[in-house]
Amino acid sequence: MKQISVKTTRRIEAVDITGPVARAVEESKVKEGVVTVYVPHTTAGVTINEGADPDVMRDVMEVLTRMAPASGAYRHLEGNADSHVKATITGSSVSVIVHNGKLMLGTWQKIFFMEFDGPRHRQVYIKVLSD
Amino acid sequence: MKQISVKTTRRIEAVDITGPVARAVEESKVKEGVVTVYVPHTTAGVTINEGADPDVMRDVMEVLTRMAPASGAYRHLEGNADSHVKATITGSSVSVIVHNGKLMLGTWQKIFFMEFDGPRHRQVYIKVLSD
Amino acid sequence: MKQISVKTTRRIEAVDITGPVARAVEESKVKEGVVTVYVPHTTAGVTINEGADPDVMRDVMEVLTRMAPASGAYRHLEGNADSHVKATITGSSVSVIVHNGKLMLGTWQKIFFMEFDGPRHRQVYIKVLSD
Repeated sequence: MKQISVKTTRRIEAVDITGPVARAVEESKVKEGVVTVYVPHTTAGVTINEGADPDVMRDVMEVLTRMAPASGAYRHLEGNADSHVKATITGSSVSVIVHNGKLMLGTWQKIFFMEFDGPRHRQVYIKVLSD
Repeated sequence: MKQISVKTTRRIEAVDITGPVARAVEESKVKEGVVTVYVPHTTAGVTINEGADPDVMRDVMEVLTRMAPASGAYRHLEGNADSHVKATITGSSVSVIVHNGKLMLGTWQKIFFMEFDGPRHRQVYIKVLSD
Repeated sequence: MKQISVKTTRRIEAVDITGPVARAVEESKVKEGVVTVYVPHTTAGVTINEGADPDVMRDVMEVLTRMAPASGAYRHLEGNADSHVKATITGSSVSVIVHNGKLMLGTWQKIFFMEFDGPRHRQVYIKVLSD
């Protein structure tokens, strides 16, 4: 298992982690398999989406915030109930197929760590399984 | 493959299944790998979120219900269209990395079966792949 | 890795791909494992839900469109910001357990390719890992 660190600088932020994930896959020497990218936090998530225009992830974050606004009528009183909700909508892991030793992402796809309660120091776990 | 049973007691309910999943991983004897926790139902889901304060999952359920209310203008007329919608938003499986024979959950993370059309007797499938 | 093609005919459409996925699993000869079904696009997704009544997926699509309407106040100006948002809410992959060489789907479960910006020619990648 590999582990990478992500330093976020805002409360809500999408950080492109495609590079570090690709390096972890390369270091694993696995040629054919599946990589699991896992976020061990309950107020953050991970997704795959377009990376060419940063406005795409800003729009994603804005719709998530419309669904779960930072200040709303929540029961959980630590000021981050919305962050937990966003984590479940987004999910805690993504899986990507590895073929010829490479991540089989589509042309426009990047892997994004999604911070919902930053700024914080975060961790991401990466595990590559071979067939 | 292991199978566990979950008995739900309300229409909408989050049930912590971390214990049974951890036992299934232990019984598999896999030391390094990835576990897939899979829900074979179309009106239920599975997620990873905070378990210390039960209000977190109540807030999650409330936001999902705001997005897909129990009674709305749906085409599917079995009275559980909202449950199907919630299932797609949440997802049918989670993946967790196994390291040194243990689930690599974060400090606050628990695995929750999400009932959206209970009360019912439900099943969860668990498969551990080794590297 | 197997690859299947999906031709969509509308902007928003759910296409049942359970048959081709089941065939890919059969051809892989894997008896016990996990299959990853992966969508390499940023304006499409994949989900598991009820297939018996097509109205179920229509309701799912309608709620997603209520959350992210086609025309809204987005920053991304290519006319498909809503499609990217729907892709993150739905997710880019599903995992299904393979047991005795068969997909362990529940009675009512089907695997759906979710088109959010069609009509287009799309690809789906399939990888089966054995235990």
